[in-house]
Amino acid sequence: MTLIPRLDMAALDAERLDSLTKGLPFGVSSMRIGDVGKQGWSLLDGDIPMPAAVIREQVLLANSAWMRDFTAANGLLIAPHGKTTMSPRLFDLQIADGAWAITVATVQQMQVCRRYGVKRVLFANQPVGRLAVDACMRALREDEAFELYCLADSEAGLAFLAEAARRNPPPSANPLRILVEIGFEGGRTGTRSRAGALALAERVAETPGLRLAGFECFEGVLPTPQAADGLIDDVAELARIAIEEGLFPAGSPVVISAGGSAFFDRVGERFDRVSFSGPVLRVLRSGCYLTHDSIGYAKAFERIQAETTLNLPAGGLKPALEVWASVQSRPERGRAMLTMGKRDVGFDAGLPVPLGWYRPGSGMEKPQPMPAGHEVVALNDQHCHMVLPPDSPLEFGDLVGFGIGHPCTTFDRWSLLFLVDEAYRVTGALKTYF
Amino acid sequence: MTLIPRLDMAALDAERLDSLTKGLPFGVSSMRIGDVGKQGWSLLDGDIPMPAAVIREQVLLANSAWMRDFTAANGLLIAPHGKTTMSPRLFDLQIADGAWAITVATVQQMQVCRRYGVKRVLFANQPVGRLAVDACMRALREDEAFELYCLADSEAGLAFLAEAARRNPPPSANPLRILVEIGFEGGRTGTRSRAGALALAERVAETPGLRLAGFECFEGVLPTPQAADGLIDDVAELARIAIEEGLFPAGSPVVISAGGSAFFDRVGERFDRVSFSGPVLRVLRSGCYLTHDSIGYAKAFERIQAETTLNLPAGGLKPALEVWASVQSRPERGRAMLTMGKRDVGFDAGLPVPLGWYRPGSGMEKPQPMPAGHEVVALNDQHCHMVLPPDSPLEFGDLVGFGIGHPCTTFDRWSLLFLVDEAYRVTGALKTYF
Repeated sequence: MTLIPRLDMAALDAERLDSLTKGLPFGVSSMRIGDVGKQGWSLLDGDIPMPAAVIREQVLLANSAWMRDFTAANGLLIAPHGKTTMSPRLFDLQIADGAWAITVATVQQMQVCRRYGVKRVLFANQPVGRLAVDACMRALREDEAFELYCLADSEAGLAFLAEAARRNPPPSANPLRILVEIGFEGGRTGTRSRAGALALAERVAETPGLRLAGFECFEGVLPTPQAADGLIDDVAELARIAIEEGLFPAGSPVVISAGGSAFFDRVGERFDRVSFSGPVLRVLRSGCYLTHDSIGYAKAFERIQAETTLNLPAGGLKPALEVWASVQSRPERGRAMLTMGKRDVGFDAGLPVPLGWYRPGSGMEKPQPMPAGHEVVALNDQHCHMVLPPDSPLEFGDLVGFGIGHPCTTFDRWSLLFLVDEAYRVTGALKTYF
Repeated sequence: MTLIPRLDMAALDAERLDSLTKGLPFGVSSMRIGDVGKQGWSLLDGDIPMPAAVIREQVLLANSAWMRDFTAANGLLIAPHGKTTMSPRLFDLQIADGAWAITVATVQQMQVCRRYGVKRVLFANQPVGRLAVDACMRALREDEAFELYCLADSEAGLAFLAEAARRNPPPSANPLRILVEIGFEGGRTGTRSRAGALALAERVAETPGLRLAGFECFEGVLPTPQAADGLIDDVAELARIAIEEGLFPAGSPVVISAGGSAFFDRVGERFDRVSFSGPVLRVLRSGCYLTHDSIGYAKAFERIQAETTLNLPAGGLKPALEVWASVQSRPERGRAMLTMGKRDVGFDAGLPVPLGWYRPGSGMEKPQPMPAGHEVVALNDQHCHMVLPPDSPLEFGDLVGFGIGHPCTTFDRWSLLFLVDEAYRVTGALKTYF
C-alpha cells in the first residue's frame, strides 16, 4: 500500500468565497477561505448570519483519528467517500490520517480531487457517457502518478470502457483499474451472480487499457447488518477465486471493498474470515464517520459498539456537524418558527434534533442543553416548525443548535461551513464543491 | 405602481462558472455564463455530462408571459418568489414581464438581488439577528432607489426592528416598509388574530424609520384552497380597516399580498371581493409558476383551470424544468439504475417522473415518449432506482429525461442549469446563488 501525499495547502487556503455565499456575514467582500478563521468571529456573539452550518473541529479531529486507529487495529484501509463532504480540506484531513484513497461518485467529484492533488481516487461507479469515460482516460494520461479505480457491473458497461480505452488509450503503466461490482436481486448496481461477476472479471483481465483490480459492493442499501453479510462474503470469495485463477497481474494490489457508514464493522469482520493466497487490500469507503450524525448513524454506531468482534479504539464517533438558526417567531405558546429549512439541513433521514440554545447579548456563558419536549415537526424551504413544552425558555432572537441526520444531505446545502471551537468561535472554514 | 428597471445584462453575462461546476462539460475551463449558449452543445449528442438540469426555454418564456397576462387580466401584480430559482437571469425575465418586485426569504437572497440591480425586494420574512437587520438598513441607505418590504408578526419582532432603526436609521425618504403578517393557529409565522394584527399595524405606523405598507399572509401551508380563504380574507379586511383608520401615510401604496403557487387563483378571487377606499396593490408571490412542475403544481393548475372565476389567458402553465440522466446499469430485467440522485433532483414532493428517452449516436430523430410502466421507486444520494416493464427499450447508456415536483428543491441542487431549445440544443445557461 502506497500512502498518498497531503494536498496543496496554499491552494486550499487560496480558494475564494464570493461575497454572496450563503453563510458569509453580509457585506463581507470576496474572501480567501484561509482568512475566515482569522476574523475573530463568534457564532454566539452573533457574528455569523443565521442559519449557519458549523463543524466542531475538536470532534471532527477526534472522529478522523478514531477511524485511523480503528482501521489500523483491524487490518483495514479506508478510502472515505468524498461525496459526503465535497470539501478538499476534509479530504486532506482524511489523507493525513492515512486514507488510502478518496472515493467519489461522479466525474465532477473526481475533478475536484484532482485539482487539489488527490493522487488515488476510487470512482465507485461505472462510468457512462463519452464525456465521463474520456475524462477518466484523460486524467490517467495527464498525470501518471494519478491512480483511478472505477467499477464495472455488466458486459455492456465493460464493452463501453473497452471501446473508450481503444479510442483514447491510457498509458500502459497507468491503466484504468477496475473493480467488478457485486449486487443483489432488487438492489442497486452490481452483477447479480458470482458466476456473472467472475466472467466479467475474466473479460476485464484481458481488455487492453484496463486492469482488473478487485471486487466491491455497496452493502448500505440493505436493511440490516445480517442481510449485508452474504454480499460482503461474495466480494471476498470472488477475490479469493480470482487470485487462485491468476486473473490479477503480478505485483498489482488486489482490492476488496465495501461501502457504507452503517455496517462497516461487518465489512471488517467478514473480510477477515477469508484466507487469500496473496496480499489483499481491505478497503472501507465510509464517508459519514467524519462528522457522524445525531440520528441514524448515531444509532448504527451504538449497534457497532455493542456487537462487533473487531478491535474498537477508545472513545468513539460523535456528532460534529450542527446547523444553527434563529427563533424568528413565537406565534403560539407551544410553537416556534426558526430561520432554517429544507435549503439548510437534510430531512431524508430524520428531522433535525434541537441540541442547545443561546440568547445573544444575555451574558449566558455557553449554550444551554435543550430541555425535553422541543421537537421539529416540519420543514418548509426556509422555515422550521418546532413544537415546545409549556415552559420553553425560547424567545424571539434566541439561537438554537440542531443535530442532523445523514451528513451528505446537509453538507450539500452549503458551499461554506464554519469550523468552530467548543465555544463556537470560528477557527476556519470549508468550501464545498457540490 | 412603479415598474422596476431591467437588470444589468452585461453583469449577468459576465458571471463566471468555475471549471469544477457540476453540469459543465469536463475539461472546460472557467467560462462566462454568457458564453455557454455559444458553444453549440447538444444534450442529445452527448455534449453535456449527465446528470443535467435543463429548462426548455420556449416553455419558460410562455409560462412567464402567461403569468404576465393572467395578472394583467385580473388586476393583480406579481412579486415572484426568487428563492425558487435564485437565478438573476430569471429575475430579469420576470421583471421584463412586469414583475412588481422580487420576493426573497433571506438577506443573502436580497443581496443577490441587489448585486444585479433589482430595485424593489419583498423580503417575505421578519428579519432576526443584528447582521440581518443591519444589512436591511444599510441597503436602504446605500441606494435610496432600492425599496425594501419586510414582515413583522409580533411585538418582539417589531421592537427589534424599531431598535435597529434607531441605531442605524434608514433615510427618511426610504424607510423600511413593513407588511404585517397574518397567520393561523397551528400554522407558520404570522399574528394569530385580527386584533393582534391591527394593534401591530398601529405600532408600526408610529415607529420612526419604519413605514406601514400593508398586510400579507402565506396561505401555501394550508391543505386546501377552501382552507386558505379565511386567511386571505383577513389580509384584505385588515387593509380595508387600516385604510379607514388612516394608518397608511398619504401617497404611499398599500400592499396586500399572499404567497404560494398552488392557490394563487383564490388569492385573486378573495382580494377582489373587498372594496377599498383608496388604491391597493394586490400582490401575488408565486415562484414556481415560472418552470411549473410535472407533479404537484401540475395538479394544482388543473384545479385552477377547472374552478377559478378569474380570467385565464389561453394556453397555461407547462413544465419547463427537466433533469436528464444516463442509464448506468440494467442489472435485472425489470430494473434500471440511473446517474441521478438526491443531489440532483427534488424528492420532497414526489419522485421524478420519466418523460422520455433517447439513445445517443443511434440516429433517433428526437426523444421518444417514455412507455407506460417506467417508474422511479427510490433515490440514493447519487443513484436513481427505476422499475421497468418487461418490454422496456432502455439499455446501458440511454438518456432519460425526468419531470420534477417542487422546482425549489431541484433548482437548489444546481449552480448551473442549461436553457435548451425544443431539440435540446443548449441556448444559454443560468447560474444560481443558493
